[in-house]
Amino acid sequence: MELTGQSFLGDRRGAMHGASFHAINPQTSEALSPAYFSASPSEVDAACQLASQAFASFSQSAGKARAAFLRRAADGITARQQELAERAHLETALPMPRLLGEAARTANQLRLFASLVEEGSWVQARIDPALPNRQPIPRPDIRSMLRPLGPVAVFGASNFPLAFSVAGGDTASALAAGCPVVVKAHSAHPGTSEIAADILTQAAAAEGLHPGVFTMLFDAGIDAGTALVRHPLIRAVAFTGSLRGGRALMDMAAARPDPIPCFAEMSSGNPVFILPGALKSNPAELAQVLFNSFTLGAGQQCTKPGIVLVAGATGDQAFLDALRPMVQAAAPSTLLTADIARAYTRATDARAREIPLAASAPAPQGASPCLAQTKIFTVCLDEFLAKPELAHEVFGPNTLLVHCDEPGDFLRAAHSLEGHLTASVFGTDQDLVAHRELIQLLEQKAGRLIFNGVPTGVDVGHAMIHGGPYPSTSDSRFTSVGSLAIYRFARPVCFQNCPQALLPPELQDANPLGIARLIDGKPERPTT
Amino acid sequence: MELTGQSFLGDRRGAMHGASFHAINPQTSEALSPAYFSASPSEVDAACQLASQAFASFSQSAGKARAAFLRRAADGITARQQELAERAHLETALPMPRLLGEAARTANQLRLFASLVEEGSWVQARIDPALPNRQPIPRPDIRSMLRPLGPVAVFGASNFPLAFSVAGGDTASALAAGCPVVVKAHSAHPGTSEIAADILTQAAAAEGLHPGVFTMLFDAGIDAGTALVRHPLIRAVAFTGSLRGGRALMDMAAARPDPIPCFAEMSSGNPVFILPGALKSNPAELAQVLFNSFTLGAGQQCTKPGIVLVAGATGDQAFLDALRPMVQAAAPSTLLTADIARAYTRATDARAREIPLAASAPAPQGASPCLAQTKIFTVCLDEFLAKPELAHEVFGPNTLLVHCDEPGDFLRAAHSLEGHLTASVFGTDQDLVAHRELIQLLEQKAGRLIFNGVPTGVDVGHAMIHGGPYPSTSDSRFTSVGSLAIYRFARPVCFQNCPQALLPPELQDANPLGIARLIDGKPERPTT
Repeated sequence: MELTGQSFLGDRRGAMHGASFHAINPQTSEALSPAYFSASPSEVDAACQLASQAFASFSQSAGKARAAFLRRAADGITARQQELAERAHLETALPMPRLLGEAARTANQLRLFASLVEEGSWVQARIDPALPNRQPIPRPDIRSMLRPLGPVAVFGASNFPLAFSVAGGDTASALAAGCPVVVKAHSAHPGTSEIAADILTQAAAAEGLHPGVFTMLFDAGIDAGTALVRHPLIRAVAFTGSLRGGRALMDMAAARPDPIPCFAEMSSGNPVFILPGALKSNPAELAQVLFNSFTLGAGQQCTKPGIVLVAGATGDQAFLDALRPMVQAAAPSTLLTADIARAYTRATDARAREIPLAASAPAPQGASPCLAQTKIFTVCLDEFLAKPELAHEVFGPNTLLVHCDEPGDFLRAAHSLEGHLTASVFGTDQDLVAHRELIQLLEQKAGRLIFNGVPTGVDVGHAMIHGGPYPSTSDSRFTSVGSLAIYRFARPVCFQNCPQALLPPELQDANPLGIARLIDGKPERPTT
Repeated sequence: MELTGQSFLGDRRGAMHGASFHAINPQTSEALSPAYFSASPSEVDAACQLASQAFASFSQSAGKARAAFLRRAADGITARQQELAERAHLETALPMPRLLGEAARTANQLRLFASLVEEGSWVQARIDPALPNRQPIPRPDIRSMLRPLGPVAVFGASNFPLAFSVAGGDTASALAAGCPVVVKAHSAHPGTSEIAADILTQAAAAEGLHPGVFTMLFDAGIDAGTALVRHPLIRAVAFTGSLRGGRALMDMAAARPDPIPCFAEMSSGNPVFILPGALKSNPAELAQVLFNSFTLGAGQQCTKPGIVLVAGATGDQAFLDALRPMVQAAAPSTLLTADIARAYTRATDARAREIPLAASAPAPQGASPCLAQTKIFTVCLDEFLAKPELAHEVFGPNTLLVHCDEPGDFLRAAHSLEGHLTASVFGTDQDLVAHRELIQLLEQKAGRLIFNGVPTGVDVGHAMIHGGPYPSTSDSRFTSVGSLAIYRFARPVCFQNCPQALLPPELQDANPLGIARLIDGKPERPTT
């Protein structure tokens, strides 16, 4: 398609006279056409008004109708995956195979939510039948189910221009729940965003939906995003990005006259504990697996292992001996933006002044301001605990090895941790049994505990939790990946003594949708 | 028991030298013995430390163990219901039969949560089995379930000294989830609180639980409560009370370095729509039902109908003619505290200067500063919409009739509403079908829609939702009444490739607890 740089406002496009910006090719520093135009305050308002108008019908639409919309969007992603990946490659420097894989993941995510809402049991329908003879007072007929929250503002991430962006998991789960979505496009990949928005807009039109179910705003700065989070018609916010950005949105959402939920996935060190038995049994393989993980996507994954707690002051020599040459041979990485690369250099330089640099790739040759050197640092636990800034995420291809020498060091380390998306434990069966207390403690520090595996790679399924205690996310009770992500955008509504004809089908006696329900707290027996 | 006025700090009691206060008998204005002593900052810290220590074992305890604790507490409430009700009657002036009923409700609530966690399926266990041959990449074994959040701070309500206080629904659901509870006792019924805390403390000891599972702090002012919400070890807050108090706690919780969820149940007008057919068919009975509802508990219920939208400028004459004499004959009500009574008089006097007073009970005779007159006001919709303060809750025995004369007035009225706990619609079958759009709109404005019934009376079951959009509660996604209330205090934790022996029983292949689970998103077939 020919990109035009205008926001998406239902069945029209935005004006071309706001502050403009361009995507930058991180490999060449070239500005990419076209110019993108910031949405004006009245365009932000128009998007929210459209979303609110769409909510009236979309919130009442059948799961099957929403499923058809999501599947059509998924088919659009699949049909145009090459176009999406090529533009995303220009805008992010992420490799084509990775981006094609991400397009497939994005389409699959949309299809997962389509299946979920088509089947329909996700609404958690509950019926407590009337008990007219109950003493001391009769019980009325009480039924409840989940209903959509209202229009949702979505802020995509820079590091997953497809799967965590315009048509990513936040948008897919909000639409599946019945919530119209207003996306604030990420300014680092506006072209990719425009193609994805075109796919979603066309899918909505083809399904005959109100054009307000999906709108998208471009913004050179933060004005449109700020206005969006503060807009009275927005009922929830979903964000993936930095701790600073996420916390700012959380604070804005909480300070509204009517506070709204803000789901921010922010910053995570993803600690990896390497227990003594595991370290001894195959140090070279461990080193390889870890290296692959912390350099995946140029170290820009939200699940990058940034803190590695290694047993033994001396026992880890073989591990380090294997890891060092991998780091020293690593080719320069092209990071997503020059800002990210500058922040990476600043943070790793600062760290190198504080603690030993255990290994470093050669300094990059070439003029691109987006190039970054792979690095690993080492520190003993006491110093790690004394310098809290060492626990902060450094976005990019690096990790920090923390030596745990004394018995009890792993527990001390775990106690000191803030919230993370994941925590991994490498251990033999014996190791794991001996560290049961550590594992129980890690449950409080992370949303996902991984055994003998690295944290990168987040499967999109029904049991996945991609969310952890603050500051890894704003709300550890929810996930942004997997089918459970839909629960961020729904609230229960209860119907008391409601005539059958006025009840949603999910709550009617006849259970016309055949969904799983609880009757008086117990699973309903199938009527077949 | 002999009341001593000291805070509960696990197996010891608090000091007797903080700022002190007494409960006041609202009927006589007498101070009731003993003096109660505010918890010091170090006592607040001690309670939180104890709760955090208790969390290590309590969070890992079996559902059956928590059920035994809750049942023992329920039995204690039942055994001492007379003692509880008598003290509560002195402290609140609520009638004995109501308080004995509330004690029964409180015990039943504890038993409901006991059954829920004993059965165990509430944890929403999910298993996505490994798919080693999946293309393009294998799927690991992924399992998730809900785990307790951590220590919870509970602030009880003045208007339900048992069911929404120390051993009320917040405490019951938090304990059921596996979260230790620190209660900030309400200063209007400290003696009732002390008895309830004694029951919970004894139940914990009898079950051999860590004494930190339940602690309670007295406070003459707001210092202890503030310190509690800001304490780093507290993981969630539950509150029932005023909008001002609730919003202050919400803001405090959101402003922490690590924001935590704050569940505040605050202010609700509980609009009642009386559609034309219903109004015509039995105006006198409607008037009686409504009068009973807005004067129940002296109009101090959170579900009191405070806004009544009545069809027809003239059609409601019979309704008003029936309602007026009931109001005019109403005996004076004794409100919970002199502050509440003063606020009631101030608010109704202000309202009477703005809009017509349709009927009033005689001015109370007697010196008690807690007496209040039953009143009803009337206003036309246009004036109601022009004066937003008319939609604010006036706590006490009064309501506001809003005349809806024109076609479309009900919809205009509904559009203008903020969030409420409930919305009721009285209508014939014909009325309801004709107002389907109104009903769909009300779904966005309230947590519970009631058909041909008043909002007072909140059944404690599995489908009940006692929670609505802001400002009725802080978070419309949750309920504070019914078994769903437990979900406020849990978060999902995911286990990837975890050895069977280290998995919680809920997630082990053999399903030793026999709970309902989802395998790959589908209900597990029983293995019997």
